[in-house]
Amino acid sequence: MTALKNDLFLRACKRLPVERTPIWVMRQAGRYLPEYRAVRKKADFMTMCKTPELAAEVTLQPVDLIGVDAAIIFSDILVVPEAMGMELEITEGKGPVFPHPIRNEADAKKLKEIDPGQELKYVLDAVALTKKELNQRVPLIGFCGSPWTLLTYMVEGQGAKNFSIIKNFIYNQPALAHALLDKITRVTADYLNAKIQAGVDAVQIFDTWGGLLSPHDFETFSLPYMEKIIRRIRPKDIPVILFAKGVHFSYPKLVESGADVIGLDWSMEIGAVRKLTGDKVALQGNMDPTVLYAGHEYIRGEALRIMRSFGHGSGHVFNLGHGILPDVPPENLKALVRCVKEESAQFHGSASK
Amino acid sequence: MTALKNDLFLRACKRLPVERTPIWVMRQAGRYLPEYRAVRKKADFMTMCKTPELAAEVTLQPVDLIGVDAAIIFSDILVVPEAMGMELEITEGKGPVFPHPIRNEADAKKLKEIDPGQELKYVLDAVALTKKELNQRVPLIGFCGSPWTLLTYMVEGQGAKNFSIIKNFIYNQPALAHALLDKITRVTADYLNAKIQAGVDAVQIFDTWGGLLSPHDFETFSLPYMEKIIRRIRPKDIPVILFAKGVHFSYPKLVESGADVIGLDWSMEIGAVRKLTGDKVALQGNMDPTVLYAGHEYIRGEALRIMRSFGHGSGHVFNLGHGILPDVPPENLKALVRCVKEESAQFHGSASK
Repeated sequence: MTALKNDLFLRACKRLPVERTPIWVMRQAGRYLPEYRAVRKKADFMTMCKTPELAAEVTLQPVDLIGVDAAIIFSDILVVPEAMGMELEITEGKGPVFPHPIRNEADAKKLKEIDPGQELKYVLDAVALTKKELNQRVPLIGFCGSPWTLLTYMVEGQGAKNFSIIKNFIYNQPALAHALLDKITRVTADYLNAKIQAGVDAVQIFDTWGGLLSPHDFETFSLPYMEKIIRRIRPKDIPVILFAKGVHFSYPKLVESGADVIGLDWSMEIGAVRKLTGDKVALQGNMDPTVLYAGHEYIRGEALRIMRSFGHGSGHVFNLGHGILPDVPPENLKALVRCVKEESAQFHGSASK
Repeated sequence: MTALKNDLFLRACKRLPVERTPIWVMRQAGRYLPEYRAVRKKADFMTMCKTPELAAEVTLQPVDLIGVDAAIIFSDILVVPEAMGMELEITEGKGPVFPHPIRNEADAKKLKEIDPGQELKYVLDAVALTKKELNQRVPLIGFCGSPWTLLTYMVEGQGAKNFSIIKNFIYNQPALAHALLDKITRVTADYLNAKIQAGVDAVQIFDTWGGLLSPHDFETFSLPYMEKIIRRIRPKDIPVILFAKGVHFSYPKLVESGADVIGLDWSMEIGAVRKLTGDKVALQGNMDPTVLYAGHEYIRGEALRIMRSFGHGSGHVFNLGHGILPDVPPENLKALVRCVKEESAQFHGSASK
């Protein structure tokens, strides 16, 4: 059905039989690669996002250099609020800053309802170009931030320790918070649909800040909006990955969200989550990103431990539990990818094999 | 058995019948109180820790002003590494810094094995003075950091984003890490025993950084050392509270740790954890600290939701899921304490009551 030369990732997302476990890692197109840093020297981060040739170039790097089983389009979740009219500053090492954060109704009114086909055309062009250059070697993943995670950035404005501002906002202005979440949800669903039309083979929703919330608040301010997005992309039969960091408590509900794959951070045993979720979804993860600081033998040991924990059968997309860290030696990621490719066949095929 | 006028907290820790749910909150002797800030103006943080009169004064403030059911001695978990010979700088708003962190064997060798009765006598004096001034009104809690959490501070040296240095340390120098954890464990156990002898009625072990670790690593580098400390506590019948933030995955093992009470962060439903742990331990927690930014009605609603989630019977010590934040209005904490005192009786006594 697919013209892809390597569709292991897509099959694992749908829990169809695979010969071995596929692997990609979050932020695989990133600073840990000298080849990425060379591109980054020529252009700042947002220019890279907005220049399809540069975005495509760094998206392909981990496919060519590391041998991962899926590409993920180089971009940022904050391109959505930026396209909705918020000024965005990204300074290396400092993290993104919105100098004019949203704090009240007047701020909220300034947010534009956009057509992603226009305002975010540069991402769609990058997707189309990357698909062409990938030449069907591996699938391409598109992504977005969850409405809750985007709202957190948009209200806090910059890196936060206790996230006091966003918490104050939702507890004291809940109606405004929900109105904003609705608006972001509509734009994000359109954005993902446009990306799918432009050619991505799967999408991932990042709820980086879901874990700031109690279970009750997560199910009030984050999960319903992700479910709305999933319902609006559902007519297309492409895998949806939901990665909500730190929300262990809501796994039974995430299984019912409509997502095909649930991304796990490293705070749980993947085998225990598989039991809990009863193989109704595929699982992605979940090696502690800092294990890539260790020696190759240690890395192999951890990779095997995780694959054994998941156990036999399809439905596991190997990944880290969060993005790869910028000071990891690329050789260590290569060792991990090699290990998963070499050792995972034993967890697939008939038991007698 | 006890001369205490209010021993609700101690009874709840041991799951003995209580007339209502007791409440105290982590960092209740802290910056959110104007009366604390007035003392803090006269002396820096470490001087306050090292001056029994000042430590006792701020320890009593939340008992007098807020009406909590337990006092916790004003101190810091980092007094232990400081007493072991590490220079410590605490700057308001910046967080603690060890200018000479531990990175190798030579650094580790400089750490002294101390006698807490000598080097930490100022804490014991503060405990004795506070007990006297409390005059049996409520119990006094003593505390320490877990060996893993202390090691994390001692190796990182200062606030960290990805905790790369400590992770590098444990993956590449595991033998040295375990030797250090052993040394800290011995000192910490002696320290808690000295505090008990000085008069504290219960102890809490804070594993603030337990959640940085995967379940496998938590059970290698953190839990066994806390278990060793608990085994060494004398006399045996003093309540031990274990608060490990972000380690939801290991609750079944925490129940077997020997602790009487498990502290919960706000990432889970307390009722679900009660079911999971089968009433073998008491539970402490677990309101999101930022709920104290909300209005009084909202705070009452949340407090009731948590008490209903725990359900009927003893074994719940109401608390926040982490320390109270410095910009919370004291009135809001008072509203919470009032609500727990007024509303919790319905969850105790015979069902017909």
